[in-house]
Amino acid sequence: MEDVLVRVIDKPQLKDPVLVEGLPGVGNVGKLAADYLRDQVKAVPLASVYSKFLPPQVYVSEEGIIRLVSQELTYRRATKAGERDLIILGGDYQGISPEGQYELTHQVLAFCAGLGVREVYTLAGFAQGHVVEQPKVLGAATSAARVEAMKKFGVVFSRNDPGGGLIGASGLFLGLGRTFQMEGVCLMGETSGYFVDPRSAEAVLKVLTQVLGLSIDFSDLEAKAKEIDRIAQKIHDAEQRPSESSRETPREDLGYIG
Amino acid sequence: MEDVLVRVIDKPQLKDPVLVEGLPGVGNVGKLAADYLRDQVKAVPLASVYSKFLPPQVYVSEEGIIRLVSQELTYRRATKAGERDLIILGGDYQGISPEGQYELTHQVLAFCAGLGVREVYTLAGFAQGHVVEQPKVLGAATSAARVEAMKKFGVVFSRNDPGGGLIGASGLFLGLGRTFQMEGVCLMGETSGYFVDPRSAEAVLKVLTQVLGLSIDFSDLEAKAKEIDRIAQKIHDAEQRPSESSRETPREDLGYIG
Amino acid sequence: MEDVLVRVIDKPQLKDPVLVEGLPGVGNVGKLAADYLRDQVKAVPLASVYSKFLPPQVYVSEEGIIRLVSQELTYRRATKAGERDLIILGGDYQGISPEGQYELTHQVLAFCAGLGVREVYTLAGFAQGHVVEQPKVLGAATSAARVEAMKKFGVVFSRNDPGGGLIGASGLFLGLGRTFQMEGVCLMGETSGYFVDPRSAEAVLKVLTQVLGLSIDFSDLEAKAKEIDRIAQKIHDAEQRPSESSRETPREDLGYIG
Amino acid sequence: MEDVLVRVIDKPQLKDPVLVEGLPGVGNVGKLAADYLRDQVKAVPLASVYSKFLPPQVYVSEEGIIRLVSQELTYRRATKAGERDLIILGGDYQGISPEGQYELTHQVLAFCAGLGVREVYTLAGFAQGHVVEQPKVLGAATSAARVEAMKKFGVVFSRNDPGGGLIGASGLFLGLGRTFQMEGVCLMGETSGYFVDPRSAEAVLKVLTQVLGLSIDFSDLEAKAKEIDRIAQKIHDAEQRPSESSRETPREDLGYIG
Repeated sequence: MEDVLVRVIDKPQLKDPVLVEGLPGVGNVGKLAADYLRDQVKAVPLASVYSKFLPPQVYVSEEGIIRLVSQELTYRRATKAGERDLIILGGDYQGISPEGQYELTHQVLAFCAGLGVREVYTLAGFAQGHVVEQPKVLGAATSAARVEAMKKFGVVFSRNDPGGGLIGASGLFLGLGRTFQMEGVCLMGETSGYFVDPRSAEAVLKVLTQVLGLSIDFSDLEAKAKEIDRIAQKIHDAEQRPSESSRETPREDLGYIG
Repeated sequence: MEDVLVRVIDKPQLKDPVLVEGLPGVGNVGKLAADYLRDQVKAVPLASVYSKFLPPQVYVSEEGIIRLVSQELTYRRATKAGERDLIILGGDYQGISPEGQYELTHQVLAFCAGLGVREVYTLAGFAQGHVVEQPKVLGAATSAARVEAMKKFGVVFSRNDPGGGLIGASGLFLGLGRTFQMEGVCLMGETSGYFVDPRSAEAVLKVLTQVLGLSIDFSDLEAKAKEIDRIAQKIHDAEQRPSESSRETPREDLGYIG
Repeated sequence: MEDVLVRVIDKPQLKDPVLVEGLPGVGNVGKLAADYLRDQVKAVPLASVYSKFLPPQVYVSEEGIIRLVSQELTYRRATKAGERDLIILGGDYQGISPEGQYELTHQVLAFCAGLGVREVYTLAGFAQGHVVEQPKVLGAATSAARVEAMKKFGVVFSRNDPGGGLIGASGLFLGLGRTFQMEGVCLMGETSGYFVDPRSAEAVLKVLTQVLGLSIDFSDLEAKAKEIDRIAQKIHDAEQRPSESSRETPREDLGYIG
Repeated sequence: MEDVLVRVIDKPQLKDPVLVEGLPGVGNVGKLAADYLRDQVKAVPLASVYSKFLPPQVYVSEEGIIRLVSQELTYRRATKAGERDLIILGGDYQGISPEGQYELTHQVLAFCAGLGVREVYTLAGFAQGHVVEQPKVLGAATSAARVEAMKKFGVVFSRNDPGGGLIGASGLFLGLGRTFQMEGVCLMGETSGYFVDPRSAEAVLKVLTQVLGLSIDFSDLEAKAKEIDRIAQKIHDAEQRPSESSRETPREDLGYIG
């Protein structure tokens, strides 16, 4: 079989579309943000990406129906002046090997280049190792001009962070994007790195929507963030009372959000 | 060499054949069921599948004759009204890497598509982590219509199981089968997950044979199930008497069944 | 680069040549035997096999000259009636992944098939887990006729050994050899599995040379075997006197033989 | 995507150029030496090498600008009689799998062969496991003539070192270079193996520049070596005073040099 199978669902003519990438990763920040954006702007299916570089796995819905793991491209046309045509990449997994990361990223970029994409925004979490009450959004970009442009939206470019660079899809979409003459920016929401973080996703999305001139409703994402806060507080409380039954510690609930 | 080598043994004309997959996995349920079905319906060799994605290994028979590890396709024509032409896939191993799983599954499906297969049944075990006296058969399918159809045969579609989806060949044959326009069902027999489980295989086969309108004799499989029960009981008894010699604990016998 | 690079050194016309394989493995028995046979019959270079499925490594000679790790094919024509033209495969490593094992074996077999090889003898060690004073030679073969033929040379075909089959090149050359219409035999010398074993290699070679109608001098191999015995005895003695300085324990010397 | 992507930046006509390789490895000796040479002779960009066999990673500069990890080829023409045209290979990583090592090395060699390279010098560290005050330079070469030539420059060819051969790019560039009819030498600076070692890099470069008839200034490299000495001394002192605060131990500083 082909290493990467891009199954085209729709063939729209798009006008200078921008690609927004948000795959699972640190704090699931990128995926939470991309999926939320997709739902809020009512993006519609563009293509499904299957690959031998994803796990050999199907998910089963509550109704018992299987679905092969994939990355999913959706799109949404600009609805008014100031907006841009959007392509959004979400999915179940990043590629599960270094080679797979490269191959998947390359093929998705090649497909998007064919649709006219010249600009990429990648969304990710930046693990701080401690709880962050007010997550800042860190940035990295393909050019000095883009760095300056992002600073105006409050994006922080730190001399030291991220020190070791970016590993995974969010960096690779920018790095390989250069081989397609694409420019781009990575927006990284600060997060503890210990659980899924809708608040960090919200911080990232607030920057992105300003940059793209979009206006969306954040109330569902805020509700998710509060639910996580509540669960985290319960865990914290439970850990303060070690003598009680562990039955009350709802740690597993954290995996459900997302 | 080719990644996957399908060595064709016979070239039958089949009429709307259904593919039944049962490879090694949890409790060896799928393989036990598929091999038993093959023997009972006297399916004959169709093709051998060799691959660099299987271990570099040969088995040696009691007579000293080697055999390269493989997956084996057999077939059996309908013998009366209400039956279907069958293709059965068994084998020594699933692919030994994620990439290998995809490649082997794709190639077997491509071969079967060439023979007219449009429907796939995959057989597997579902590990419950505890002994199951009366194993239920859980299901997952490619469409709501198939889910409903299977419920009539007593297949259980649980809202929560399998929670993480299906990993391995049984899921992948359905997921990749969709790219060949095949519909399908996965039948999962409940099992402890601790040893090979002919009783779970029997539960799965009882559903499958009803669905396919086949009538087979289950007595050999029941005999195997009783032998496992007997061994499990001996182990249990031995563990209740820790002071005795471990020499009597026939734990290794369990690997022999199957 | 090509996955496997067969660099041809000589292009002899050979008459019904037999391939003898002996690569590193258990007790290094196969490699010791194949290299000794090559030296005794004065086989000359036929081809070097380089591959990305071997380690990225060069060896450095005592003179400081590098050599890329490889597998080496040599050949030797029959010198009198009753002998056969020989191709001998030795080398530094087996393939370092399952896929690499398949690919290397396939390519070497394809090259040998082009030279007319229809028969393969693979040489290996069989780990018994304890010291074996008089190593027997166990066998496995591609047909019942070959099993019978080998029994006449004292080869033991055990109902239970090797129980899990053969893993690695010695099995794969027979298994994949079948896809080239080659017949073959694996000769396995019993060995402890704890160190290199020239005595086991000698046992294997004595069978092989009888089968192939060759007459060679075993005195160098016997000298090596005695040297191993001497070192093993010293280790054994040293372990009986734990109070002495470990400086005297020449365990590392064992790696040198071979 | 292609396994290895050589993005050509300049297309110079070079006259019998020599390739100098120095990638990350033991003590980072090879990379330190190659990068220092590049800076001192003011080599200019020739080609960037990207590959799925490098990590899926981008680095971020202090200004926030991303750069995909790569290997970098630079070149510098001879500036006077006695000098040679130079091609220098540096980079962020060696290939991250055995297969990747072979593929990257092969492709870089193929590109360099196209530019007329027939001679390769590889630079590396040789881990001694203890601090080496006056590092010697060990050698390995593709021919006896080159061994003799190198001895005149003080290169040590030891009967026993390196015992297990050379693993990684420095060996492979010579080993695979032979398949391109290239001759070559590996120069290995003795180093402890515990931290980056500019002093060892200097020893290697002093030999290399003499061999190539180059004259460069070593003062910056010596300054780096002294900085490492100073840090190593501080660590040593701190470890002699275990009762003090660990806050003063600047072990992490060591990673910064390089």
